[in-house]
Amino acid sequence: MNKSYDVVIVGGGVNGGSIAFQLAKRGFKVALIEKDQLACKASHAAAGMLGAQTELTEDGPLFQLARKSRAMFPALADELRELSGIDIGLVNKGMLKIALTPEEKGEFKKIISLQRQLGEETSWLEPEELKKYEPELSDRILGAMYIPHDGQVSAPDLSMAFAKAAAVMGADIVEYTEVIGFILEHGTAKGVITNTGNIYADKVIVTAGAWSGRLLKENGIYISTYPVKGECFSVLTHKPLIEKTIFSHGCYLVPKKGGRLVVGATMIKNTFDEQVSLGGLSGLMERAKVILPAIEKAKWEKAWAGIRPQTEDGLPIIGEHPEYEGLWIATGHYRNGILLSPITGLLIADLIERKPVDEKLLRAFSFERSSIIQA
Amino acid sequence: MNKSYDVVIVGGGVNGGSIAFQLAKRGFKVALIEKDQLACKASHAAAGMLGAQTELTEDGPLFQLARKSRAMFPALADELRELSGIDIGLVNKGMLKIALTPEEKGEFKKIISLQRQLGEETSWLEPEELKKYEPELSDRILGAMYIPHDGQVSAPDLSMAFAKAAAVMGADIVEYTEVIGFILEHGTAKGVITNTGNIYADKVIVTAGAWSGRLLKENGIYISTYPVKGECFSVLTHKPLIEKTIFSHGCYLVPKKGGRLVVGATMIKNTFDEQVSLGGLSGLMERAKVILPAIEKAKWEKAWAGIRPQTEDGLPIIGEHPEYEGLWIATGHYRNGILLSPITGLLIADLIERKPVDEKLLRAFSFERSSIIQA
Amino acid sequence: MNKSYDVVIVGGGVNGGSIAFQLAKRGFKVALIEKDQLACKASHAAAGMLGAQTELTEDGPLFQLARKSRAMFPALADELRELSGIDIGLVNKGMLKIALTPEEKGEFKKIISLQRQLGEETSWLEPEELKKYEPELSDRILGAMYIPHDGQVSAPDLSMAFAKAAAVMGADIVEYTEVIGFILEHGTAKGVITNTGNIYADKVIVTAGAWSGRLLKENGIYISTYPVKGECFSVLTHKPLIEKTIFSHGCYLVPKKGGRLVVGATMIKNTFDEQVSLGGLSGLMERAKVILPAIEKAKWEKAWAGIRPQTEDGLPIIGEHPEYEGLWIATGHYRNGILLSPITGLLIADLIERKPVDEKLLRAFSFERSSIIQA
Amino acid sequence: MNKSYDVVIVGGGVNGGSIAFQLAKRGFKVALIEKDQLACKASHAAAGMLGAQTELTEDGPLFQLARKSRAMFPALADELRELSGIDIGLVNKGMLKIALTPEEKGEFKKIISLQRQLGEETSWLEPEELKKYEPELSDRILGAMYIPHDGQVSAPDLSMAFAKAAAVMGADIVEYTEVIGFILEHGTAKGVITNTGNIYADKVIVTAGAWSGRLLKENGIYISTYPVKGECFSVLTHKPLIEKTIFSHGCYLVPKKGGRLVVGATMIKNTFDEQVSLGGLSGLMERAKVILPAIEKAKWEKAWAGIRPQTEDGLPIIGEHPEYEGLWIATGHYRNGILLSPITGLLIADLIERKPVDEKLLRAFSFERSSIIQA
Repeated sequence: MNKSYDVVIVGGGVNGGSIAFQLAKRGFKVALIEKDQLACKASHAAAGMLGAQTELTEDGPLFQLARKSRAMFPALADELRELSGIDIGLVNKGMLKIALTPEEKGEFKKIISLQRQLGEETSWLEPEELKKYEPELSDRILGAMYIPHDGQVSAPDLSMAFAKAAAVMGADIVEYTEVIGFILEHGTAKGVITNTGNIYADKVIVTAGAWSGRLLKENGIYISTYPVKGECFSVLTHKPLIEKTIFSHGCYLVPKKGGRLVVGATMIKNTFDEQVSLGGLSGLMERAKVILPAIEKAKWEKAWAGIRPQTEDGLPIIGEHPEYEGLWIATGHYRNGILLSPITGLLIADLIERKPVDEKLLRAFSFERSSIIQA
Repeated sequence: MNKSYDVVIVGGGVNGGSIAFQLAKRGFKVALIEKDQLACKASHAAAGMLGAQTELTEDGPLFQLARKSRAMFPALADELRELSGIDIGLVNKGMLKIALTPEEKGEFKKIISLQRQLGEETSWLEPEELKKYEPELSDRILGAMYIPHDGQVSAPDLSMAFAKAAAVMGADIVEYTEVIGFILEHGTAKGVITNTGNIYADKVIVTAGAWSGRLLKENGIYISTYPVKGECFSVLTHKPLIEKTIFSHGCYLVPKKGGRLVVGATMIKNTFDEQVSLGGLSGLMERAKVILPAIEKAKWEKAWAGIRPQTEDGLPIIGEHPEYEGLWIATGHYRNGILLSPITGLLIADLIERKPVDEKLLRAFSFERSSIIQA
Repeated sequence: MNKSYDVVIVGGGVNGGSIAFQLAKRGFKVALIEKDQLACKASHAAAGMLGAQTELTEDGPLFQLARKSRAMFPALADELRELSGIDIGLVNKGMLKIALTPEEKGEFKKIISLQRQLGEETSWLEPEELKKYEPELSDRILGAMYIPHDGQVSAPDLSMAFAKAAAVMGADIVEYTEVIGFILEHGTAKGVITNTGNIYADKVIVTAGAWSGRLLKENGIYISTYPVKGECFSVLTHKPLIEKTIFSHGCYLVPKKGGRLVVGATMIKNTFDEQVSLGGLSGLMERAKVILPAIEKAKWEKAWAGIRPQTEDGLPIIGEHPEYEGLWIATGHYRNGILLSPITGLLIADLIERKPVDEKLLRAFSFERSSIIQA
Repeated sequence: MNKSYDVVIVGGGVNGGSIAFQLAKRGFKVALIEKDQLACKASHAAAGMLGAQTELTEDGPLFQLARKSRAMFPALADELRELSGIDIGLVNKGMLKIALTPEEKGEFKKIISLQRQLGEETSWLEPEELKKYEPELSDRILGAMYIPHDGQVSAPDLSMAFAKAAAVMGADIVEYTEVIGFILEHGTAKGVITNTGNIYADKVIVTAGAWSGRLLKENGIYISTYPVKGECFSVLTHKPLIEKTIFSHGCYLVPKKGGRLVVGATMIKNTFDEQVSLGGLSGLMERAKVILPAIEKAKWEKAWAGIRPQTEDGLPIIGEHPEYEGLWIATGHYRNGILLSPITGLLIADLIERKPVDEKLLRAFSFERSSIIQA
């Protein structure tokens, strides 16, 4: 398999797929290399929340990036469906960040005020208003921050749709092929070494999620990321119990198509073990019952876990390596991998095409920032 | 569970779901009763072809019904997605009925001529034109009847979308509940007897597919239907091998979202056995390889089978029982259950509401016609 | 399928399989008819405890029957493995019935005394002795009734082994075939009517578990049984957490091969719904954590449910119908279906062969007893 | 996880498990590290033939090794069942290597003669004798080499039983942990570097099957192995179609417990892709139908594939690295991984304990032989 490409992308998750899609659309000859099957890790496990305002509580580069990415979803949903046949399950019915303590209530009201100053739409709902939207929620809830524009998608469908749309646009998808190292000549990336041969390319983009660090390290490039496991489960009802996504400390509930409800997620650091523990699962169940008592009668579906890449400063790494020309990376998206995938694909494609980008913003995600370079 | 409804529907397949949806929308209090899980039999197994012109080769009531039903899909797709979140996977890229022998070529050209007289769009494609649309098709094909308006849907998604949309509109879905008999008073249906109690209703509609005959027979009502097993399999490619549905004697290929390709189906009479035989499967594979040689390199996904209800005259049974007021039936759709589900739901709802319907057309599907009444 | 047999057995669960095996071994021409797949209901869901002394707390016919059946397992395990290749997973490491309250402690000590008088081996373990056997058990346990001869098997393996061994001995297994009624001539059973034709036989034996009542009722024979759902789950560890089966009010833990641990079971009356509710599952988890705290770290495997047939007096129904010659039944085994399956097969075969049996014992399980005949 | 062990084993397949079991039994403190789940690759995919005489057609070290290993199975089956509860499904009913051409017939007769000289039991069966053993075999078969002592096991069960028995004997099993490199001090192995930390040990044993080469290469150690994919499928019947394993060029049929029949296997070099192609599958089916026509009516179960490690000279690599003290390897078993696993575990354990071994035999499998060292 001594093939030659414009760009080879290492890792078939949601961000690898998004970049492959953007580049294939622009006429680049792209190979998307995956060591197992497409979207079989964190991108498959994610609950798919698009929490641009929910998860991010202060202004800053991540908030700016998230807002831009969120805005891309409606057009993207149509484009991906047209190309791949896959519906990404985009739901734009808003999110409710519920307060269970007076402290949370106070905190959320401050965030509302801040976000409004930044031009974002959000409001406080008192319990009686909340009940109008979501009558099944617990009486113990003291109110909620309502975010009308934070939606959700089906993460597995989005991930597959990116890759399959890229294939339709001409990208080659190569599964069950592990990248072992990079072909570097005079400090310039020239391709990758896989377990079944070399693949040559002008650019190499590493999008291997929590597994990116290991691959780079083998090649003498150190970044400081660590894996964080998240355990989830799902239940089924014929009539949906909730309409909007419910977000709480330690537990969120995401209503999916056909009455499916996804509940997540634990946070367990420094493990790649994708199994679910009984303790993690029963803890999540107890929290879900506090928020939504009617979930008791819902039908059990299944449990699963995913391993997400986190960085020391909580910001993803997106950009070209300062020393190795042609070697790019996009990882460290942690809980925002699904939300940030459209903008990640767009930015990398613009940078590779040398189109103008918001350089100030990108600096926050660069390799150069000190915190992500491991000693 | 001694509940009371306006209408109780027996059988949670695609037609039961469609009727439940239409009636719930119109304000009826509906219960949809299923002995196992929703859409777990033929409605789940179907390849989802909407072959109004492909499968039907002469004018007649079934052709009229099929055309009307096919026309309902685009609006239905939007409506069901809005209510249930489920995308039914409607694809409107046309069908190709391929000729492998000179006899078939002659036959198809006659059908084209006939259908044009009936106002349907269709044309003959010579091999070189066919190759422009579908370059991967075999060189052995002598041409194809091209039917631009025959599309396809995801049968499992359509079936679930009907039922879940009905639930959102207020219908109760009752799974794992078997109907044993009917509550009849002075020749009028008053509900059903289940294995966990009685359910009262003003109307009872039997939509139990191939299992309808058994239920009716237990209650002394004889209809002449028989089960026909169809075995299928699916393969996967990243780039779709074909764009349009390919139809041939003994084998059809239906391209699904994301590069999935469904191949069907055998026809084995008088069995309810849902298992797939090695002989049936390897025979289908051989036929598929003749039509689409590139399928050899596609990745195996899985095999399955479904049991479809056929009648002696090949027409479904749709209507009220002549002797038992309030007892309705919709079964015998054979290979057209998915295609005919929208019109079946509409007709039954219109009849129940005593709205004007095409009575001449309906007579062809009535209980009264001699051929379906078993001695 | 108008075939003729000596015996036709209706229901491919553990008791149908056991009877088929016993009769085929003795040279009878047997058909085992199953409406779905072999052992796909309660026999597949059972945890497989052989609790002859654990579940039964007083002398009586059920205790006598259970003791005899338990004694048959060791020889049966060898015989079934030889014939079918299937290992039934028999484990003879004893059971511990743990006391969590002083009341339970007092009660269990009385049962120990009673059982010893009946010649059964059992003893009381104080907490420190209990910890020697099972160091992972909670410190909150006040001691346990130790029953060295109550073991456990793999219920799905036992069920399949019976049926497959019967097939090897010449029985015909007919899946996906539903029995609708009995062929009765002058009050004598002559076979069954199925959804694909008649099957003639000199004897008809109904072993359809919780579904037996419905079948009989359709034929005008009323028995008073009701379904009871049991929900279970399983977890995995590499080193087994416990060696012996642990039995407690509302929760038991059964250690399976390879470090698998099955936890059961809820009891929900009058439903055939085989789905698991989140409430039932989280309740079981909480109880399991109280008994075995280390289960928190075990890996989640899956949850499931089964529907067991219970009778008003708690005794199974085993015998020939008093009015219909040649019509036999074996159902109502409730939580003891696995334990009682060997003796059920033996008794029915002996009765059919007119061999001498303990008639006094059998009277307790007969059709004649008043409590099981429904008004 | 900076733990310390006597021995760390890298790769949780059948050979890693066998070595872990042998060493744990002898009191070594062992860690078995697996990057995914135990036995999830080739060890799970294997058909489990123990073809000491079937696959090996000339005298030589591999034949000697295979004979010794085969002889270990009966005692091992009992020991593993006792410790882990897992039955390894050992069947000792012999193998039939069938001739479909006069050339094969001539060849097999020569092999029979050779093997008898070596003291092995084997004989030629003419078609009529063959039919007595296996009446369902095709009339086209010209006879068979009968090998009474070549049996078969369940490969997934054997693999899990080794690992779980090792755990019971005290070994730690560490799943979802990838070994990235070796800790080497002055040319001596001191442990491994994993993606979640270092694990220290006096000995490191690489048993990573087809993935061993990559791991060694990253550490500058080159061995010449390559992956060979094998695709398989299985079908089900209630009464077994065959009793003995049937071996033919390009197709073997292995009868498993309960009437399951495994058919394998294609041989596709230089890929790690574990997916099954439609072409590979339909080819296997056609070959199986030629040998065993009755397989047409068997029920389809599933298809799968495994990736096996092959070496240039066809011999496994078993032994300590000549330059790195404490670094051991056992890989390259190709199609004999299951058969050779008992002797591999025994030999490695004996060597580590410095017990006397057949040094002449071992030399054939050593690192020193020229053919396996990659340029």
